[in-house]
Amino acid sequence: MSRINIGIDAMGGDKAPEQIVLGTINAANAKQDVNFTLIGKEEEILRWELPKNVRIVNARDAIEDDEPPVQALRTKRDSSIMRGIKLVLEKNLSAFVSAGSTGAVVAASIFKLGYLEGVKKCGILVTLPTKNGMAALVDAGANLNPKPIHYLQYAIMGSCYINILHPGKEINIGLLNVGEETTKGTEPIKQAHKLLKSCLTNFKGNVEGHEILSGNFQLILCDGFVGNIVLKLGESMASFLMNGLKSMIESSIELKDKFREFNKPFDFSEYGGAPILGINGTVLIAHGRSDNRAITNALFNAINMVQNDINGKISEEIKQHSLWKRIQKMLNIVDES
Amino acid sequence: MSRINIGIDAMGGDKAPEQIVLGTINAANAKQDVNFTLIGKEEEILRWELPKNVRIVNARDAIEDDEPPVQALRTKRDSSIMRGIKLVLEKNLSAFVSAGSTGAVVAASIFKLGYLEGVKKCGILVTLPTKNGMAALVDAGANLNPKPIHYLQYAIMGSCYINILHPGKEINIGLLNVGEETTKGTEPIKQAHKLLKSCLTNFKGNVEGHEILSGNFQLILCDGFVGNIVLKLGESMASFLMNGLKSMIESSIELKDKFREFNKPFDFSEYGGAPILGINGTVLIAHGRSDNRAITNALFNAINMVQNDINGKISEEIKQHSLWKRIQKMLNIVDES
Repeated sequence: MSRINIGIDAMGGDKAPEQIVLGTINAANAKQDVNFTLIGKEEEILRWELPKNVRIVNARDAIEDDEPPVQALRTKRDSSIMRGIKLVLEKNLSAFVSAGSTGAVVAASIFKLGYLEGVKKCGILVTLPTKNGMAALVDAGANLNPKPIHYLQYAIMGSCYINILHPGKEINIGLLNVGEETTKGTEPIKQAHKLLKSCLTNFKGNVEGHEILSGNFQLILCDGFVGNIVLKLGESMASFLMNGLKSMIESSIELKDKFREFNKPFDFSEYGGAPILGINGTVLIAHGRSDNRAITNALFNAINMVQNDINGKISEEIKQHSLWKRIQKMLNIVDES
Repeated sequence: MSRINIGIDAMGGDKAPEQIVLGTINAANAKQDVNFTLIGKEEEILRWELPKNVRIVNARDAIEDDEPPVQALRTKRDSSIMRGIKLVLEKNLSAFVSAGSTGAVVAASIFKLGYLEGVKKCGILVTLPTKNGMAALVDAGANLNPKPIHYLQYAIMGSCYINILHPGKEINIGLLNVGEETTKGTEPIKQAHKLLKSCLTNFKGNVEGHEILSGNFQLILCDGFVGNIVLKLGESMASFLMNGLKSMIESSIELKDKFREFNKPFDFSEYGGAPILGINGTVLIAHGRSDNRAITNALFNAINMVQNDINGKISEEIKQHSLWKRIQKMLNIVDES
């Protein structure tokens, strides 16, 4: 594959296909050395005039957000999501971005692409604003019952991702928990704490809920249940507070600008989608409410991940950490599946 | 016991004893038909002049927030927390309020007072602001691995509490989960969903993270791990955003007032502490950062709970729901301990 080719689900998200197509056009105009592939109902996409480096792959079905993912993938045989994932599998796409059903994208990725060698489970990485730059949180919902080894692999994969986005940045890793002490938390969390501590020098211990936004941790690990709640609560709370204040503030033009600046880190369209780490292929989930700006940013992020060969780096790091088995035995942590 | 007598841990919280004593004095002046008992180091409390209806019980030890709770209760034989709980056990106090170590208060309550008849596990109820009044969340950290029956009992106990605070209010109950569908979540959550649905007509299904603040649910159930994270994240996020905006807004006097009004529901000192539901005695946890206003409100809340005999009501409701065993068998949910 000589040129990078990024696929995008034209049917996914609340504002599809319009905002998806517009976001792709923006990205294509900005990155003329990259190809883009819109996947979805051709007749709907053709309403827009596309740049030369954007092509269409027709897919007749669209999976809705409220459909049970696995069932939808089975019954809708020609969905834009499955079509996109298959093109990644066949190496016809370098990466795939979807703002559609997270469950369907994750399921299709696991079933069709599988995991990178040595990876036990994938995890969704999301980016959160903090008092001091951004923080990454893994997992935001791919794996509801992680075992200790999964947390360790999230730490390794998440670090690779942050290194690509912010080369040279110091990464302090924390484990989301109900207290600072090592004796706190559920059994899997206590065991994960032990394993992380023995394997990673930059593991800084437990993070409590009020420290997520402190900026003291650049990578926060948690199970997919808690991560999903944290993400959705955080997003809704920011928009709840910001909308409440907006009307109050917008009476003054000066304040309006300041407010917009302040609000910026809480605006998800600033971020480039959430990668599913650990999948044998580059797949990103964009927010369901993505506008064209959010889509453009997600496409830029996909290009960045491909250009920096994130999966090559993850595979290497996972291999190097394969001594975890020995360490696990040393620590008498039994579960390793 | 003719007069209500509310005990308060004078040594608990970041601003103890000063703000605790001042908050107690405020409450005592406002409620002259109630007695109050400050429990802690007498010589420190005696710095303030106390109203007639406030007395002191000396306790030589104070448990710090960062001590392992159970160990601290064992080694510090005369802690203000254990002294307060014992006074509740001996019926010398109608209720006990502490802004000290949550872990120590919960542990002492369970060990000394035990559960109300029929109650399997206690749960901490916290109050959260929403777009449409307040919502209660149980459990905020007493029980990290609840079984289905615990969720049902949280629903029953939480409803009793809301009924006392807001008589006649409609209570929609939701189960915190990663999706709306009944097939979502971990195994215990799926089973809890089934049980709640079959037992409670006002159970409205799953609540996602972004719906916590929607105001559509007045009682939200979750495990103590998630509840603890939600509470701490929510609090810290509100203060993070509000502080960031404060300086921007305070240039205008008019906006300053509006902002204060808007900020009010996010200020924990407005609420009256978090009751530990299910304990055979009335015990409330106040926030560690409580100022005197927060303490006064917690004391008022304790009086309200005692006057309305919340534990009598909970016991009654739990008994009525004892048919849960039959329902559980019907549903083939095995675990009931």
